[in-house]
Amino acid sequence: MFRKLLTLDEAKEAIRSRLNVEPLGVEEIPLLKAYDRVLAESVTATLDIPPFNRSTVDGYVVRAEDTYGADETTPVKLKVVGTVSVGKPSRIVVGRIEAAEIVTGAPIPEGADAAVMVEDTERKKNELKVFASVTKDENVMKKGADIKNGETIFKAGKVLKSREAGVLAAIGKSKAKVYTIPKVAVLSTGAEVSEPGYKLPPGKIYDINAYSLSIAVLENGGEPIYSGVVPDDRPRLRSALEQSLASADMVLTSGGVSVGPKDIVPETIASLGKPGLIFSGIAVKPGKPATVALIDRKPIFSFPGHPTSALLMFHLLARPVLRQMSGRPIAETQLVKAFIKTRIFSAKGRRTFVMVKLNRDVRNQLIAEPVETGASGAISTLAKADGFVEIPENQQFVDSDEEVTVTLFGSSL
Amino acid sequence: MFRKLLTLDEAKEAIRSRLNVEPLGVEEIPLLKAYDRVLAESVTATLDIPPFNRSTVDGYVVRAEDTYGADETTPVKLKVVGTVSVGKPSRIVVGRIEAAEIVTGAPIPEGADAAVMVEDTERKKNELKVFASVTKDENVMKKGADIKNGETIFKAGKVLKSREAGVLAAIGKSKAKVYTIPKVAVLSTGAEVSEPGYKLPPGKIYDINAYSLSIAVLENGGEPIYSGVVPDDRPRLRSALEQSLASADMVLTSGGVSVGPKDIVPETIASLGKPGLIFSGIAVKPGKPATVALIDRKPIFSFPGHPTSALLMFHLLARPVLRQMSGRPIAETQLVKAFIKTRIFSAKGRRTFVMVKLNRDVRNQLIAEPVETGASGAISTLAKADGFVEIPENQQFVDSDEEVTVTLFGSSL
Repeated sequence: MFRKLLTLDEAKEAIRSRLNVEPLGVEEIPLLKAYDRVLAESVTATLDIPPFNRSTVDGYVVRAEDTYGADETTPVKLKVVGTVSVGKPSRIVVGRIEAAEIVTGAPIPEGADAAVMVEDTERKKNELKVFASVTKDENVMKKGADIKNGETIFKAGKVLKSREAGVLAAIGKSKAKVYTIPKVAVLSTGAEVSEPGYKLPPGKIYDINAYSLSIAVLENGGEPIYSGVVPDDRPRLRSALEQSLASADMVLTSGGVSVGPKDIVPETIASLGKPGLIFSGIAVKPGKPATVALIDRKPIFSFPGHPTSALLMFHLLARPVLRQMSGRPIAETQLVKAFIKTRIFSAKGRRTFVMVKLNRDVRNQLIAEPVETGASGAISTLAKADGFVEIPENQQFVDSDEEVTVTLFGSSL
Repeated sequence: MFRKLLTLDEAKEAIRSRLNVEPLGVEEIPLLKAYDRVLAESVTATLDIPPFNRSTVDGYVVRAEDTYGADETTPVKLKVVGTVSVGKPSRIVVGRIEAAEIVTGAPIPEGADAAVMVEDTERKKNELKVFASVTKDENVMKKGADIKNGETIFKAGKVLKSREAGVLAAIGKSKAKVYTIPKVAVLSTGAEVSEPGYKLPPGKIYDINAYSLSIAVLENGGEPIYSGVVPDDRPRLRSALEQSLASADMVLTSGGVSVGPKDIVPETIASLGKPGLIFSGIAVKPGKPATVALIDRKPIFSFPGHPTSALLMFHLLARPVLRQMSGRPIAETQLVKAFIKTRIFSAKGRRTFVMVKLNRDVRNQLIAEPVETGASGAISTLAKADGFVEIPENQQFVDSDEEVTVTLFGSSL
């Protein structure tokens, strides 16, 4: 079949419009297990925080007006009528010219409207000298000052980290409703690949992609179902894909999608169900044979076998889908400006991605040095690269010393 | 007890020198479970990658010299002696004026030293016309070109992400030796705090810190052991701390370390064993009562009960220890420059931390707006802050519109 390949932007648009991805479902889990999970509902406070007026100091609660005029030389004298404990409701009532002992965090008792710091007092039995005046509400944290009953705390889509967990705990929640984690089956195809952990048969190489893609799934909020290496024959591939579709929400394959005689993956995928292939092939380099299908609402992504191509295509095509499926914001990738060390060329008419390593030169400028990730540097140099530079379809090359934008791998590729 | 408080730098130095933290141990786990774990050994390749010379194209393997002079108008003619399969060792030998069919990734057979792309050939039965010359090793990925047998791939301390998993798989590893995950007991003290998930008793507030600190432990490679709220009395606190020390590698407490009459935590910790307290109190704001102890080689950190103080002190004091314990690099915190919106003041003689929210002004400049995290904004505003600004001990204030460095929370606080 000969036809014009989709551009990368067309491919992304086809994925957006045809796949129409939504979060898969919702589950309620303990807040302590919800690290890095995504809130599936907006959360509203059902109580005031704090739930009562609290003292913010150790000292004495008073009626503020009773202290007016007090200073270091002319204290006012109050009668201590009791002690307010922390953590318990108080029965004490503070009347005129009265005070009650209090510690930080304890509820302000009836009648009192301010707290005096212990440093500003002197006590002899039940007689208290107050050497500073306080205003109404001074040293008092008012009921609802932090969070108001009925206030919306978080909207759905919030990713839960330590501070968010703290806020949810503050309003009494020990559980959270979060989006379920998408299950992603990851399998490799190709007669030449063999599973790591076993002796390498002659003529074979160890499979890389099922591992790197599985971990990339974890990095983006999915649960990988490692499905290992599937032999390059139609019935076995078909049965492996059917099994993956049955047990997972999304399927990633690598290998077997280029133009060689053994490239049976797109054909097999197309035959699995409706609507079938969304596209097969994109005008990019590397990654041209990338194939995307939708079978009964489950997306299948097939990437080339080259480890850099597979991870790059995952990043560009599958990662946004996976993140949307888990209700996760499509995290911004980190970009930095740098000067390219050597001239880099694009593949004619294809969006070209060049892996680069970042260094600083003597003038402390950031330099992007292209690394060989083609045939002769399949995996080792990918691990050394810090990110990639994109050359648009309509541009032949980027000259050395030109400024480029580097998309950093971070944990995102 | 009255004495000069340690500065933050002195406190950090005391932790470094007295705690003398090292990774706890090593375990071997499946590579697929090793996401975000830390390599505990350097890894050396025990084979060449690729393990044999491979074709990088679909086409024919030849002796390069046989193709010299060939071009579009004057092809050379070779005899096809067989087909090299991918994934199997080949018995084919390519002699002079001979060729063998090959696919990408298949081993280069004996006798051949280059591959011609199928596009540059024309075949009729066993007669092959080659319309382009190739040089020795053209379209061949040489044995060991990617990774050499004996090469050191990673050093101990490498954090495993998708690309690293791919490299380990490439050299046949399906397991990894990684540092064990430190267990961190997290408990809250204070008569006023009550566990989320249950009805709030009158006079109490929900516990925040055991949740926010547990998740902060997860964010930094530890396994939290949530130990909930411990009542503020000596025997129960002592027994909870003893239990925590028995089951965890490190203990975090919050609450009960300020100067109130109920502040029994430092005393109780000091009585647990040797060497005991490292320090109690630092010249910082907030977080002044922070206490650090070492009991039988296990560190105990006690933070104030205020949620912002507790998380900030975790970040400044405990996080580096936890990360070192897990063999993890003390990740650089992300810093950005911004202009402070309003004048901020320091507490006299104390390193002061001011929480800020970042916005862009009309000129697209980054503006840091201080947020109230004191008594009246304990938790809600912390969640809204993007980071903090530090004011040195010897500086009284930072004026509005001055440029400041903001340490971003990201996932690190």
